Amino acid sequence: MNELLTNSLPDLLRNLPGLRLFAICSLVLAVKMMILGGSTAAVRARLKVAVNKEDVGNSGATLSDVEHPEVARYLRAHRNDLENIPMFFAIGLVAILIGASPRGMQICFIVFTLARVTHTVVYLKSLQPWRTLSFAIGNLCTLALGIMSVIRAFG
Amino acid sequence: MNELLTNSLPDLLRNLPGLRLFAICSLVLAVKMMILGGSTAAVRARLKVAVNKEDVGNSGATLSDVEHPEVARYLRAHRNDLENIPMFFAIGLVAILIGASPRGMQICFIVFTLARVTHTVVYLKSLQPWRTLSFAIGNLCTLALGIMSVIRAFG
Amino acid sequence: MNELLTNSLPDLLRNLPGLRLFAICSLVLAVKMMILGGSTAAVRARLKVAVNKEDVGNSGATLSDVEHPEVARYLRAHRNDLENIPMFFAIGLVAILIGASPRGMQICFIVFTLARVTHTVVYLKSLQPWRTLSFAIGNLCTLALGIMSVIRAFG
Repeated sequence: MNELLTNSLPDLLRNLPGLRLFAICSLVLAVKMMILGGSTAAVRARLKVAVNKEDVGNSGATLSDVEHPEVARYLRAHRNDLENIPMFFAIGLVAILIGASPRGMQICFIVFTLARVTHTVVYLKSLQPWRTLSFAIGNLCTLALGIMSVIRAFG
Repeated sequence: MNELLTNSLPDLLRNLPGLRLFAICSLVLAVKMMILGGSTAAVRARLKVAVNKEDVGNSGATLSDVEHPEVARYLRAHRNDLENIPMFFAIGLVAILIGASPRGMQICFIVFTLARVTHTVVYLKSLQPWRTLSFAIGNLCTLALGIMSVIRAFG
Repeated sequence: MNELLTNSLPDLLRNLPGLRLFAICSLVLAVKMMILGGSTAAVRARLKVAVNKEDVGNSGATLSDVEHPEVARYLRAHRNDLENIPMFFAIGLVAILIGASPRGMQICFIVFTLARVTHTVVYLKSLQPWRTLSFAIGNLCTLALGIMSVIRAFG
């Protein structure tokens, strides 16, 4: 009996509503953040600026304690990710484990991921009101997931 | 048999000790962080300052590369959240899945959440030693959860 | 039957491939981040600098809106953690739940943890190319975990 359970559990968990989609969305968001981090380094290289003395090397870069305004924009876009994406990761996993509405999770996972990709693009392109809009939509998805989880917890 | 399991798993997972409470605590912490983010924007609007040129618009805000000291305090409070809350989210989920002491989890989840809400309030109000104290209490909760999980893993 | 399941589930979950190791790695990474946060405070104390007026007290510290360069390095090392570790936490938990390759998870969890500890040490010691190398290795582990999860989801 226990052996049967041990063998079935991985398949049962894999089929938990939302988990497969969440695996894709979390990978997309992680790659998105990695690209943003890499782009920040690329902008520093293009502008020939560095904040760490060991990065100056033979590159002819200028060392500065203050970030170049263009780099600072990339850092702000990334920081906004840090303020929103880890929160979504946690609340999304709770929703899956607690068994929130599958359709609700599906919508929130997809919309959140699209909203955050959009947010980065429009932040770097200085486009308003799209930045605020995509930020708000992302927050609403996280909020909805959290509320659905609490409803399911006590429903 | 497998069908029975498939049908029972969601209810079994929902009843995992700690998960319901964690759903509430993670929602409270997420809302707390969203309010802090919104307050930062509100302070910028009140002080008529902006760091992004596209936010100046017709608002009469002054564009600056350096954050206003009052805004900077909000950003530091938020950054302290980022240094602590995602860590708690991960270690709390591990504790639930690995089956750490239910009473221990209960205490750590509630105390951590209260400590972090307190931390934000006293940081914004410049109150010491309460800021350091609430920070330390939050860290102790995360540490205790991590240690309880490792004990359970090999106990 | 359901009672039997309820009693077995905690043990079954505890034995999920990767979870025990992840419990150790997440604790190591959390402690590492806490030490880094504490070291930042220690450096500020040694240099007698403060960014919050309530921290000046009787310490004779100088209040400044701009961080001391040495403190700024600690903050950048910590921020790099924030850009990478929460992402790993989420993607690692997904890999465990979805049942990614146990051997693959084992390698990624251990290598990521070693890479991030190394990253902090070499960042603080201004050592290149080790900083970039350990950063890249950590990212590759997260990427590999995400890809293994998606493969398992649809494999």
